[in-house]
Amino acid sequence: MSDHRQKRLVALTRLISANPGAQLSLTDLSHRLHVAKSTLSEDLLLIKEALESQGLGHIDSQVGAAGGVTFRPALDVERIREHLTVFVRELTNPDRLTPDGFLYVTDLLFSPERIDVMGTLLAERFRPVGVDYVATVETRGIPLALSAARALMVDMVLLRRDNRLSEGSSLSINYLSGSSRRVQSMSLARRAPVRGGRILFVDDFMQAGGTARAAQDLLGDFGAQVVGVGVLVATREPKQKVVDDYSAILEWVRSDEGPGTVFPTEWVQRLVEWEGSLES
Amino acid sequence: MSDHRQKRLVALTRLISANPGAQLSLTDLSHRLHVAKSTLSEDLLLIKEALESQGLGHIDSQVGAAGGVTFRPALDVERIREHLTVFVRELTNPDRLTPDGFLYVTDLLFSPERIDVMGTLLAERFRPVGVDYVATVETRGIPLALSAARALMVDMVLLRRDNRLSEGSSLSINYLSGSSRRVQSMSLARRAPVRGGRILFVDDFMQAGGTARAAQDLLGDFGAQVVGVGVLVATREPKQKVVDDYSAILEWVRSDEGPGTVFPTEWVQRLVEWEGSLES
Repeated sequence: MSDHRQKRLVALTRLISANPGAQLSLTDLSHRLHVAKSTLSEDLLLIKEALESQGLGHIDSQVGAAGGVTFRPALDVERIREHLTVFVRELTNPDRLTPDGFLYVTDLLFSPERIDVMGTLLAERFRPVGVDYVATVETRGIPLALSAARALMVDMVLLRRDNRLSEGSSLSINYLSGSSRRVQSMSLARRAPVRGGRILFVDDFMQAGGTARAAQDLLGDFGAQVVGVGVLVATREPKQKVVDDYSAILEWVRSDEGPGTVFPTEWVQRLVEWEGSLES
Repeated sequence: MSDHRQKRLVALTRLISANPGAQLSLTDLSHRLHVAKSTLSEDLLLIKEALESQGLGHIDSQVGAAGGVTFRPALDVERIREHLTVFVRELTNPDRLTPDGFLYVTDLLFSPERIDVMGTLLAERFRPVGVDYVATVETRGIPLALSAARALMVDMVLLRRDNRLSEGSSLSINYLSGSSRRVQSMSLARRAPVRGGRILFVDDFMQAGGTARAAQDLLGDFGAQVVGVGVLVATREPKQKVVDDYSAILEWVRSDEGPGTVFPTEWVQRLVEWEGSLES
């Protein structure tokens, strides 16, 4: 009998934690596990205590006829620190500098293992704001934007660099990009379902913020509102960006010789208790 | 005491299933849960039985000094069927046709909730082949490729449409695209770490297969080998593709009037027992 309950607890823990952030109906769970709702509630209470006391996450219950439970995993602070350390090291690795002074990091940006952790950080930062969509401009910010969207349980909106016939009619905007010192453009399909939405704009890299500003304007034309800007790396200079507010995970202080220095920004250091691990 | 074990089982189930496919060390787990390895082994046996009997996944054990456990989640067949149904419906939704005869589906492709399921299907299909990297050409195939890479626990390689200064020196290839009837190009940074790798090429859409063929050639120049081609949608015509072998999740039979018909391909139908749900 006890063995029976133990196995049910295992199955229930897996079912709940397989879909973080999703509401699972108590009715569905009780059918799936062939158990009365009252028994289920007792099991859920024990699971809640076990996960919370171990710092593994939280379980929220929704009462009433459409009652259910939602699992919210805790941040894996140790794993985040580990991956931050890799980014800090690789972004200052002279071998990654191209002859033209760019940093080759596409391989890191397109590693789900590495970038998911960073997406989780942005999601943690912007969840309280209330986000309906995560937007980015193609191409290198896409994995980070998708990871943040997944963690926030929302869809992503793709701003294109050029007008695509395959997207039907589009709205476009031209703007001056600080990093490339040339006129860039971005466009969004009129069919993109963003009207009235609250948007988190995400990108891999920010210098003066021209791209984020252009995205803000373009999305504004769709009746959507950019409620947050989150980037993986922002340069310290220029201090004055053209967007009012943004959150970077890493700050990059450029140097004329070599790749300069990179470190986690204040909110990230606080979140993952960075100081302690700096000594290592 | 029994309550104590129950809570430990819950925590252990969460720890194992939080990182599907990853090997967790028994030493780390026993430290994390303050329990002897012998007790841990008993717990893991019970968890294995519970998950496998409920069809929730498998636990593999690695013995020896570096002993550990790996959790492999079972395919959620019901959820896959649900999302396949949405894709079949939306790909044949006349409202999605642009005036130029293209289908607007970018919003579906960039929905983590929807595309992750499809990536899992491709991963399931190609796992036995042994894949070191998943590659795609920007832009619309990126979310599917990332999802497949995540499920296979490998990184993604991004083929660019044009030469980017920011990637350093690149190799490029020109080819004739069947769908746009014009010369396209793709390039890959020389620094991309793919040498000797076994590559799964992924894309959202395939007609004659020219893009997949070009990717095969380009990656071949890097000493990498395309060991599989997986796409979300392939058109039935032309029957003869320019790649020898590929796996599509959905097949699209075009029609001169309207969007035609779409259905899951044979291997997908078999995997998710599609016939039964066709009646609904």
